[in-house]
Amino acid sequence: MILPARRFRPVLAAALLGAAFFAPAAVAQEEAKTYPSPGEIVAEAAPSEWVTIAPEDMLVMELGPGAKGEPRRVVIQLMPPPFAQGWIGNIRKLAEAHWWNGTSVNRVQDNYVVQWGDATEKKPLPDGLETVPESAYTVVWEDLSPPLTNNISKAKASLYPWHAKDPWRDAYSGGADFVYGWPIAGNAERAWPIHCYGMVGVGRNLSPDTGTGAELYTVIGQAPRHLDRNIALVGRVIEGMENLSSLPRGTGDLGFYENPEERTPIVSVRLASELPEAERPNFQYLSTESATFARYAEARANRRDPFFNVPAGGADICNIPVPIRKTPAQ
Amino acid sequence: MILPARRFRPVLAAALLGAAFFAPAAVAQEEAKTYPSPGEIVAEAAPSEWVTIAPEDMLVMELGPGAKGEPRRVVIQLMPPPFAQGWIGNIRKLAEAHWWNGTSVNRVQDNYVVQWGDATEKKPLPDGLETVPESAYTVVWEDLSPPLTNNISKAKASLYPWHAKDPWRDAYSGGADFVYGWPIAGNAERAWPIHCYGMVGVGRNLSPDTGTGAELYTVIGQAPRHLDRNIALVGRVIEGMENLSSLPRGTGDLGFYENPEERTPIVSVRLASELPEAERPNFQYLSTESATFARYAEARANRRDPFFNVPAGGADICNIPVPIRKTPAQ
Repeated sequence: MILPARRFRPVLAAALLGAAFFAPAAVAQEEAKTYPSPGEIVAEAAPSEWVTIAPEDMLVMELGPGAKGEPRRVVIQLMPPPFAQGWIGNIRKLAEAHWWNGTSVNRVQDNYVVQWGDATEKKPLPDGLETVPESAYTVVWEDLSPPLTNNISKAKASLYPWHAKDPWRDAYSGGADFVYGWPIAGNAERAWPIHCYGMVGVGRNLSPDTGTGAELYTVIGQAPRHLDRNIALVGRVIEGMENLSSLPRGTGDLGFYENPEERTPIVSVRLASELPEAERPNFQYLSTESATFARYAEARANRRDPFFNVPAGGADICNIPVPIRKTPAQ
Repeated sequence: MILPARRFRPVLAAALLGAAFFAPAAVAQEEAKTYPSPGEIVAEAAPSEWVTIAPEDMLVMELGPGAKGEPRRVVIQLMPPPFAQGWIGNIRKLAEAHWWNGTSVNRVQDNYVVQWGDATEKKPLPDGLETVPESAYTVVWEDLSPPLTNNISKAKASLYPWHAKDPWRDAYSGGADFVYGWPIAGNAERAWPIHCYGMVGVGRNLSPDTGTGAELYTVIGQAPRHLDRNIALVGRVIEGMENLSSLPRGTGDLGFYENPEERTPIVSVRLASELPEAERPNFQYLSTESATFARYAEARANRRDPFFNVPAGGADICNIPVPIRKTPAQ
């Protein structure tokens, strides 16, 4: 009996994109496959499905060189309106003032966060920073542009049929989904960004303080979703995450370094738009409103590529990272 | 008007246990608090609520010294019956044969896994390893001891009222909960362990291979729950996780190191029961059937300690790590 035709693909693509548990020998031996992996689906996206990130929406942080002298750059994409714009305005001012130059990474707590800023807490802040109210941790649906009305389920159920059993099921909110390139949770009235791996937020003291944006952190473990709505998220790391996530863990309370020498120096933080054009990072994200993203998310929730036997039938939103790529040469 | 009495606690305890975003200055200034943090709840557990982990259920892995010559020990707790006992039997044989001594950590993929074993894939395995069938990725409820019948919701809804909106809500299964100290998902018939941060699994090639247990990995990012039921979980890292999670990321496909010198040497892997008594690790986990665990999980799902304004009303099971501590001196 002849089996249904199978798709054969170069094995290297599966190894690069599939993120499965092939041992190297298996990569060399196994060739048959039936379904594309999520990475292979993304690789087939049309150029028009990729959205170029504007230089004024990227922070470029240069850390001191690594153990072998290698440069360590981290690129952060800032969130679009209407999310967190008060803090993001402050962050643009801090970057333009080169305020972070000479500060450091001061805290690395395993399975939680890496945090950076002024360890002395005495460096004067630039004039004109906004004090953002706690109400800005969330937005009303009507402020989204183009607007989404009411809530995720109603507005988007027809767009993203990737969750087989209970769309938008989320332990922390009325529903979670992707909105204009970002993981967003919400209820009937309001929406807010989600603390997924690599998201960047604003350190603060006790309420009613909301932080200025001078003290920032990124998530390096299981999504700490209990921070949603309790602290401002302003962006995500899109390049160089490993330069933060692989730093030595601090041994002090909350993962703060006990000795100043343990801190990683921050050489500079600039908006990409301030860099000479040749030095600017160029990145795109896959539109979360695109047909390819819907296929990708569905495949993340139901892995059928060769390594897998049992598709899950669902996925946590933080286990569906929004694909990012370097802008291809024209 | 006199406000209701508030509980005051030493600030250091909150800083140590609360895992919040206090900047150091805030820790020194703020003192008022109303509700205990999850960590403070755990600190109040009765001695009888802690379960001592038997030496034969712990693997002790000694890595080569770190950059400053520091010793790097990793302790792994193996799962109890009926979970994954075929692979765990193999792992005990491999440890007794000192098979891992001289092997290495070969793969570190950011936000995914650290993997170790024999990079050459040529080292002969000890005799007598079992070939475990794929059916052993899951167990039937009736095999749990003491038995839980049918499914988590029915058996445990009365025990763990920590999930306010929809108990056992889980994007990847019929329900998820803690069973005898471990995060477990299930449906009406079967149950299986969950790929949370720090869980340890068995690398394998393509199905029907299930792996021997010689190639192991641990999760260092967002829970890769799509691997549940597709690969065997055998334990979790209970000490020294940072010695794996902070290793440099590999730059080859799937995070494999491209140069052998980048690998981290494994000096030895032994069962704790093989160590002289004075060198054995001594750990306990908080019984997930205890009243304190129920309070702790509820507090993880509804943070009300001073840093938080909005309790989430729920939590992902992987955001409720089972508390582990060193056994207190008698």
